[in-house]
Amino acid sequence: MTSGVGGAKLVHGLATAGDASQLWVFVNTGDDFEHLGLRICPDLDTTVYTLAGLADSERGWGRAGESWEFLSALEALGGPGWFRLGDRDLALNVLRTHELANGVALSDFSSSICRRLGIDAQVLPVTDSPVRTEILTRDGWLPFQDYFVRRRCEPEVREIRYNGSDCAHPLPELLEKLQSTETAAVILAPSNPWLSIGPILAVPGIASALRSCPAPVIAVTPIIQGDSVKGPTAKIMRELALDVSAGTIAGYYGDLIDGFILDVRDAHLEEAIDVPVCIADTLMITMEDRKRLALESVAFAGRLGKQAAAGTSE
Amino acid sequence: MTSGVGGAKLVHGLATAGDASQLWVFVNTGDDFEHLGLRICPDLDTTVYTLAGLADSERGWGRAGESWEFLSALEALGGPGWFRLGDRDLALNVLRTHELANGVALSDFSSSICRRLGIDAQVLPVTDSPVRTEILTRDGWLPFQDYFVRRRCEPEVREIRYNGSDCAHPLPELLEKLQSTETAAVILAPSNPWLSIGPILAVPGIASALRSCPAPVIAVTPIIQGDSVKGPTAKIMRELALDVSAGTIAGYYGDLIDGFILDVRDAHLEEAIDVPVCIADTLMITMEDRKRLALESVAFAGRLGKQAAAGTSE
Repeated sequence: MTSGVGGAKLVHGLATAGDASQLWVFVNTGDDFEHLGLRICPDLDTTVYTLAGLADSERGWGRAGESWEFLSALEALGGPGWFRLGDRDLALNVLRTHELANGVALSDFSSSICRRLGIDAQVLPVTDSPVRTEILTRDGWLPFQDYFVRRRCEPEVREIRYNGSDCAHPLPELLEKLQSTETAAVILAPSNPWLSIGPILAVPGIASALRSCPAPVIAVTPIIQGDSVKGPTAKIMRELALDVSAGTIAGYYGDLIDGFILDVRDAHLEEAIDVPVCIADTLMITMEDRKRLALESVAFAGRLGKQAAAGTSE
Repeated sequence: MTSGVGGAKLVHGLATAGDASQLWVFVNTGDDFEHLGLRICPDLDTTVYTLAGLADSERGWGRAGESWEFLSALEALGGPGWFRLGDRDLALNVLRTHELANGVALSDFSSSICRRLGIDAQVLPVTDSPVRTEILTRDGWLPFQDYFVRRRCEPEVREIRYNGSDCAHPLPELLEKLQSTETAAVILAPSNPWLSIGPILAVPGIASALRSCPAPVIAVTPIIQGDSVKGPTAKIMRELALDVSAGTIAGYYGDLIDGFILDVRDAHLEEAIDVPVCIADTLMITMEDRKRLALESVAFAGRLGKQAAAGTSE
């Protein structure tokens, strides 16, 4: 289960290092929103673009070689320019909005785009129901993209909620994979737990499915040496009065996970973590890094799986 | 009242040669359609882009210096490429679709875009009601853009209808201008009467307002020497078993007009036309041509107005 750039990198490693057709990627939809009447799904698109080799890896979002003619024309017409929609990226957004308006489910649209772009992995939203992350600041509740993009994560975060999650339904494929004995491992990507994994866990049924999942569930730390690799995770943790450490991340997941991947730079924190730990270099700079971390994650899950099987047979 | 490229050129001449703030341009909406969930208004946009100096005059539609990144990305995703939406043009379409979905009237949106682009003339749709031109071919009734763009006007036209016109309401500003004694002239642009002016006249109340209009109503021929200057007018006239001549155009308008502008190359047809005729060079190649024809049209209407005033006082 994934969200954002760190997640997309690990997913890319998993798809490249192993058999991509066996990889099911369930993506956060809490960052989704309506902009100019278009349905924007930043995490789904980052994942899809990354797997299709279309992502702009420098910028961390959108497509490589993107142009901005639409945006500059829009601003000249008095339209809003704060959310930067590239000309090529717009194609996916316009097509999705149109299909969804015609009654196509987001998950079906995502599958069709993956096929079209030659992606062997299954990239799906965690839910077809609308779940919207909102941030309480001193200016009141802000929609996620308002906080994240328009205000560049500047307001202090007081609270986070996942609007709509109460009545959301997990994608049947997700529950099926979590219940299946065929599933080798469930990996929670190195994403911000509160902003990115939280909206997934808030969908009724997902947390309990993780707890009863026969496959080992592991999480990869998004925090290295007391700071976030990317994005506002550390800032938000401070604002929520949390200790900015990998240990806090492991604690957040609690009994949902069977193992935790700690960065090699934080090896000394192993004792503070209640689940089995794998120490790895979690920084993904190169494509090789992505593959290496993917293989280490799968191997770690494999060891946990065998222990569990041994435990069961005792 | 105008539609398409020829109309936009004459409107441009009128706006440039005279006081643009006194110019009210009412534009055909029969070519409008929904594409990819976007509201496309080709005639309004051609008029607006032309007046704003943004039009691609070579191609005859869309914006100058346009790029096509959106379209190529859309086709790569399996989306439809037959209707060519440029990256910059898309800005106007996305913004309009969004505003209309929020309950803004097309006419109000058009006004705001004109202000934004520094256009002094008022460019408005003939109606805010949906009117959709449809073409009967041997494949059945086709939406206008399907016939015009996707099939490049190839199917034989058997009949033309203006779907929705029965229940359409003319824009109040249009009726007001047609009824006003302040209006100096009403000009029907050199557009295809069946495809482009027909959907205007089909809106209940407009034809009768033209008949009782105190200002002189004149039409400019779109046919020169038995052929259309641009577009499929001549082809359609042949398919409808009509004589392809300026006389047929004047006959189509019948008692709606008080005068007709005939091209100098067709001067010999003057006798066949039942209303006062002005002979002019109606071919608009250069900007000077646009201004010249605009000034001649206004002068002709002025002469007709004086005659009518003289007739009344007799």
